[in-house]
Amino acid sequence: MFHSLQPKNKTNVLGRETKSVSQNSMKTSLFRKELKIMAPILLNVGNESTDCLEHGLVHVKNPHLDFMEEDILYHFNLGTKTHNLPAMFGDIKFVCVGGSANRMKAFAQFIFKELELKGDCNDIDDICAGTDRYSMYKAGPVLSISHGMGVPSISIMMHELIKLLHHARCRDVTLIRIGTSGGVGLEPGTVVITDTAVDSFFQPQFEQVVLGKVIVRSTQLDENLAQELLQCGKEIPNLPTVLGNTMCTHDFYEGQGRLDGALCSFSTEDKLEYLRKAHEAGVRNIEMESTVFAAMCRVCGLKAAVICVTLLDRFKGDQISTPHELLLEYQQRPQYLVSHFIKKHLGLHN
Amino acid sequence: MFHSLQPKNKTNVLGRETKSVSQNSMKTSLFRKELKIMAPILLNVGNESTDCLEHGLVHVKNPHLDFMEEDILYHFNLGTKTHNLPAMFGDIKFVCVGGSANRMKAFAQFIFKELELKGDCNDIDDICAGTDRYSMYKAGPVLSISHGMGVPSISIMMHELIKLLHHARCRDVTLIRIGTSGGVGLEPGTVVITDTAVDSFFQPQFEQVVLGKVIVRSTQLDENLAQELLQCGKEIPNLPTVLGNTMCTHDFYEGQGRLDGALCSFSTEDKLEYLRKAHEAGVRNIEMESTVFAAMCRVCGLKAAVICVTLLDRFKGDQISTPHELLLEYQQRPQYLVSHFIKKHLGLHN
Repeated sequence: MFHSLQPKNKTNVLGRETKSVSQNSMKTSLFRKELKIMAPILLNVGNESTDCLEHGLVHVKNPHLDFMEEDILYHFNLGTKTHNLPAMFGDIKFVCVGGSANRMKAFAQFIFKELELKGDCNDIDDICAGTDRYSMYKAGPVLSISHGMGVPSISIMMHELIKLLHHARCRDVTLIRIGTSGGVGLEPGTVVITDTAVDSFFQPQFEQVVLGKVIVRSTQLDENLAQELLQCGKEIPNLPTVLGNTMCTHDFYEGQGRLDGALCSFSTEDKLEYLRKAHEAGVRNIEMESTVFAAMCRVCGLKAAVICVTLLDRFKGDQISTPHELLLEYQQRPQYLVSHFIKKHLGLHN
Repeated sequence: MFHSLQPKNKTNVLGRETKSVSQNSMKTSLFRKELKIMAPILLNVGNESTDCLEHGLVHVKNPHLDFMEEDILYHFNLGTKTHNLPAMFGDIKFVCVGGSANRMKAFAQFIFKELELKGDCNDIDDICAGTDRYSMYKAGPVLSISHGMGVPSISIMMHELIKLLHHARCRDVTLIRIGTSGGVGLEPGTVVITDTAVDSFFQPQFEQVVLGKVIVRSTQLDENLAQELLQCGKEIPNLPTVLGNTMCTHDFYEGQGRLDGALCSFSTEDKLEYLRKAHEAGVRNIEMESTVFAAMCRVCGLKAAVICVTLLDRFKGDQISTPHELLLEYQQRPQYLVSHFIKKHLGLHN
């Protein structure tokens, strides 16, 4: 089942070691040049990936896991010895993730009703109740998980989620991030289905540091899934939906060109110029998780999509001053779209 | 009050623009070389900083804020028009931050009792109750805030916290991060007071992307504060405390050399070699927030320290399998230390 990794063969990871210098030679290090090379072993290329995809299994890419007696998913407060993961999660077909715990609870309750599941949607418990790192709710074949804000936060969740799906022997799982974002030249409330997740330099890649080496992973998402979701958006009245690139940054203020942070060393014109360049590169919204989400799904053979609603148009401002009620309505839009998609797949439409 | 920024003068930010290429030329971009240069304007050097420090004020470094009619601290659900920030926060002298909302609530209740404040510690409300992004509790002159996991998550909180302290006209504020970490060659349960926060390459710096340019900031912390905290640790029985460098990574698994993630392409020996190099560079623990915390405090003239307990020794394993009760006890250790320090400063010791 595992990709044929050869952990001791360092030629597999082509990234040249980044020069490490002592604190005292910091000044010289500022001119450190990095050679970042795509690591083919982690790019989901080759026959192994295809084999796994054919079986529809979630494939972890870690040969060490085979030799572990127990796997504690620490940030979920779950484990292979303490929980029967196949019984708890074996039927999962859709995993929806989003930043806010409250929102992902509301989504679980919403999809519970939409799928007309038996019981009271208010009875859905947080499966990760023993920890406040993440929240997790299950509604039939749909798992709803919060991931906090930013790439590191979602990356921890993704490692443990992928292992969970693997341990639970799930098949044919689709992952969808439903989030909020800043729009780039769009009317607030527009839903953006991500074509390509790009970094702050508008490149479709994610840089991962592994043991002090920088490796680069592709952030390509599933094209067919994106098209299918776009079609779903068109089928729902009053749900403005577009396909566009999504820029993922590592902070909300300086990294996104906001003029209202505690630190800001650039002018309004500098900001607008950056946003114009982003727009030219096809960027239609900005958020903080899509690149690592896309990269990890791709490596592990998981179909994935990113659907974010825009809360404001960044060409027109930085502060989110939209009334609370309207913000809540906006945040439900990706949920409506995903619900429509899931119901279609389960044959629950008329 | 503001540092004399000249936002339109691009020579102030010395970082050469990182080459941005279209998606189609991705392959060539993999060999992109970056020139990263320390941006002196953001390094808290020069007379302006000293002036502000003399007055003890928290100085934001953003001239645009002066021209804003209202400042909405979106992720706190607070604002300058909707809340009287000086009345709510003007007396704050210590801000303690940590990842988990539950832990920071427990800390607020603990310090409330330790400071013998009037009332019931169970009555302390979450000031950010309107949002689930962060939690915030006030106990007399102490503010306790959760920041989630990872650099982006704490960075959003820090921007809004620094603006909050600025708007509230707070003076002589000390910021302390109290967290959990993986130890490097230390007995689990050891409390590490951070000497220097270093990145994955063991360098005392934080790389911030601003409008597609990489700028580098120093992560130097307050030496006297660290020494004072070390002394506090020595004064408390059975609280093993050391001073050491803290490595801040952008993920929990591959970036920290864990063998138990969903992805792992290296051997046990590769991992141990990296940890040995880290240890040689003075690293005694690994966490995910210290560099940006240190960098932002430094830029804004805030005294800051990082105190993390180690939950395991990474030379001996990756999984956190310590019994729950013992983990809880470990997590209280930085709280005891900080409480001792605060009481000393407030003259509450015998």
